[in-house]
Amino acid sequence: MSKIEKFVESITPRDEDFARWYTDICLGAELCSYSNVRGCIILRPYGYAIWELITAELDRRFKDTGHENVMMPLFIPESMLQKEKDHVEGFAPEVAWVTHGGDERLTERLCVRPTSEVLFCDHFADIIQSWRDLPKLYNQWVSVVRWEKTTRPFLRTREFFWQEGHTAHATEEDAMEETLLMLDVYEEFYREALAIPVLRGLKSESEKFAGAVKTYTVEAMMHDGKALQSGTSHYLGDGFAKAFNIQYTDKDNQLRHIHQTSWGVSSRSIGGLIMVHGDDEGLVLPPAVAPIQVVIIPIATHKEGVLEEAMKLKDSLKAAGLRVFLDDSDRMPGWKFSEYEMKGVPIRLEIGPRDIANNQCVAMSRDNREKTIVPLEDVAKEIPVLLEALHARMLGRAETFMKERIYDVDNLEDFVKTMEENPGFIRAAWCGSADCEAKIKELTTATSRCLEEDGDTDGSVCVVCGERAQHSVFWGKAY
Amino acid sequence: MSKIEKFVESITPRDEDFARWYTDICLGAELCSYSNVRGCIILRPYGYAIWELITAELDRRFKDTGHENVMMPLFIPESMLQKEKDHVEGFAPEVAWVTHGGDERLTERLCVRPTSEVLFCDHFADIIQSWRDLPKLYNQWVSVVRWEKTTRPFLRTREFFWQEGHTAHATEEDAMEETLLMLDVYEEFYREALAIPVLRGLKSESEKFAGAVKTYTVEAMMHDGKALQSGTSHYLGDGFAKAFNIQYTDKDNQLRHIHQTSWGVSSRSIGGLIMVHGDDEGLVLPPAVAPIQVVIIPIATHKEGVLEEAMKLKDSLKAAGLRVFLDDSDRMPGWKFSEYEMKGVPIRLEIGPRDIANNQCVAMSRDNREKTIVPLEDVAKEIPVLLEALHARMLGRAETFMKERIYDVDNLEDFVKTMEENPGFIRAAWCGSADCEAKIKELTTATSRCLEEDGDTDGSVCVVCGERAQHSVFWGKAY
Repeated sequence: MSKIEKFVESITPRDEDFARWYTDICLGAELCSYSNVRGCIILRPYGYAIWELITAELDRRFKDTGHENVMMPLFIPESMLQKEKDHVEGFAPEVAWVTHGGDERLTERLCVRPTSEVLFCDHFADIIQSWRDLPKLYNQWVSVVRWEKTTRPFLRTREFFWQEGHTAHATEEDAMEETLLMLDVYEEFYREALAIPVLRGLKSESEKFAGAVKTYTVEAMMHDGKALQSGTSHYLGDGFAKAFNIQYTDKDNQLRHIHQTSWGVSSRSIGGLIMVHGDDEGLVLPPAVAPIQVVIIPIATHKEGVLEEAMKLKDSLKAAGLRVFLDDSDRMPGWKFSEYEMKGVPIRLEIGPRDIANNQCVAMSRDNREKTIVPLEDVAKEIPVLLEALHARMLGRAETFMKERIYDVDNLEDFVKTMEENPGFIRAAWCGSADCEAKIKELTTATSRCLEEDGDTDGSVCVVCGERAQHSVFWGKAY
Repeated sequence: MSKIEKFVESITPRDEDFARWYTDICLGAELCSYSNVRGCIILRPYGYAIWELITAELDRRFKDTGHENVMMPLFIPESMLQKEKDHVEGFAPEVAWVTHGGDERLTERLCVRPTSEVLFCDHFADIIQSWRDLPKLYNQWVSVVRWEKTTRPFLRTREFFWQEGHTAHATEEDAMEETLLMLDVYEEFYREALAIPVLRGLKSESEKFAGAVKTYTVEAMMHDGKALQSGTSHYLGDGFAKAFNIQYTDKDNQLRHIHQTSWGVSSRSIGGLIMVHGDDEGLVLPPAVAPIQVVIIPIATHKEGVLEEAMKLKDSLKAAGLRVFLDDSDRMPGWKFSEYEMKGVPIRLEIGPRDIANNQCVAMSRDNREKTIVPLEDVAKEIPVLLEALHARMLGRAETFMKERIYDVDNLEDFVKTMEENPGFIRAAWCGSADCEAKIKELTTATSRCLEEDGDTDGSVCVVCGERAQHSVFWGKAY
């Protein structure tokens, strides 16, 4: 047993019990705590810091594409929720209802927003009159509530944190362009900020958002082969506009209904980070969303000059714009190694008397545990290079992992067998009927995750019914 | 009538009807909209951008003083709210109750948090065991709900936005130090970010927070002479710790209760900005929280070179780190002038053919409407100087305004007369009895805003009963 291993806190090995391993990381890395409010979690400082970085990464991309932040009320009056038929059917069964203010019963129940389409519609009807008022490109950062029966930290909680974009456009074409633009933004965000590759495409009719004409999704593959729906972008058409009477006068002085979109990414993405990158030592964070990018662990701090050199390292890395933490506490280095590995800090810098004598320090990359000797004078230049390489490796590894686990299948028997034996996604042709889709779900619990973009269906037949195929579809078991 | 005046949109003059003037600015500057959810407002992009800057200013100060952000659940189970007696008495009458999740009646009602002391206590009990776990210095950015009967944008709404700090300490001394530190932070934030001077001090027993041992406050004077409670910092003692059984083992291996604080500043501060600095042209924003610090208005944009020079100006100001907006729309300059004055943009830069010929532009400061000619090559250097001077003038003006409206009074008759005739605060001695305090409220509607720090009461008697005075108190009518 190596000197390091004995300090590792016990978490369940990932391949022994994936669900327990996941929970062990959530608690062990101090991302969250269970609360005494059923189905709700507490985001602890480290988990919240990751969420702050995720929001900053997304918010920058939203602003760069011309979006503005606003804030709608927390509550939706029952009559407002009921205006769009499909929407209320989808959400009413899972909302929390406020019935009393203080001691008084309310004349109308209010639900805590499960999503805010109707609130934005109500506002759009108020502020949009002319084509000059369009487009409106809005977003808000809030929590929403859905009364889930079974919950798991980050993946499914009664309250969760997200952004919801809501935009209003003059034409269907403009709104569709926005819908796809935001799907691009999400895909790029997942790759560049979270080092997570995604499949992207249209949802089937039965999997789309309640009230949408079209729902696009980005889907990531977790280490257990299951799918995590990681972000969605909806083209809402003019259905909400008709229900809420949102009209504008166009350049020809004609009254027209607006066309809308909505799109969201939530704190689920933290669950994705854990399940794509984590290992038996704990979390592994890509640099862009790591609250600590570099942790400095001085060795033999009682020896002259060690702390001073460690502080110099810290200052020069901070000056280089990195998030760096110097742990000069009196705990044993081994304990510190374990803790920051559990927390997924991308790079650990060790510096001790022998390193100082050699004018160097030792950088360990969290993902592959490889050590690099870095001359002290090169630290501010070399660490960013190591971080970039680490991100590229994480993304590459996840990409290979996903590609190797997408199975092409052309008959139902193989479909069932593959889904049973091989964790991962199946790519198979589909006729487009809800019955065939339901059949697969019934036999395997897998659902259609998305239609393959530009998927080739020439000469293919549906994997269930054998009729002519309309789509090539990615199927998977989902969180 | 000058060329500019005729473009000014009509808002109610401030001294004609202060309340209507206030609402006109809220709507005219597009800070917020009324929503169809009673008592709740919508923060529009410009209003939300101000709030984002306020949160950034505060958040930086919190992090610099060692605090970490976390996120507690939105809901509080009824039994949890009831654990601390004073606290539940203060808040239960004004909370929103969730009674149903979907179609099911909940076995226990949940209130939407009106404030989160009990949620933090529940968490502290979970994570604090030893003196090594202390202090915990937490903050969260959330909205809270209080079921107010009458509401006004920013000043009093059923849902409002704030930060709430919650800290746990080993000793009373540590907790008191934290309580006062955060009062310092608030005072400095109001002066340096919002250009608002505040009075600070202890609240009387009847005005303190439900559940606190001591409440400190910062109070600002609005243009109508009324007080706005602008931030509070509470020393909670160990009452919550006893109710929630939050104990730690100290260095001597003894079990002890923790001592707590909580402190908050809310979106009310936007109301304060309006009512301290606004004028008959609209909002006037201090640079630190102005979404646009400099607006560039090109004059005669059809003339060759004007737009190019305006863009150069924009680039150089942006490079200098300023938030700058170039309005190159085809509206008349007069309309633009009015709009950005309404929005309180600190500096307007005009540039036209004649300016370009003279290698200059014209900067108008929003607060005093003074124009300064700035050589084009000095813009990046001069504008920050103008902004700093503007902030100093705004703060100085508000300070003089407040000082001139604090009246010293030593008998009840003068108290009533002064409060009736002179908008502002009264400084008067008080014996400390709740009866005398209530008497003043009954006669004048004024309340004790805070006890004067180091107020001299030697030889003074209570302005109501004539008994020996315990405190020098600032009194005022409050929002």
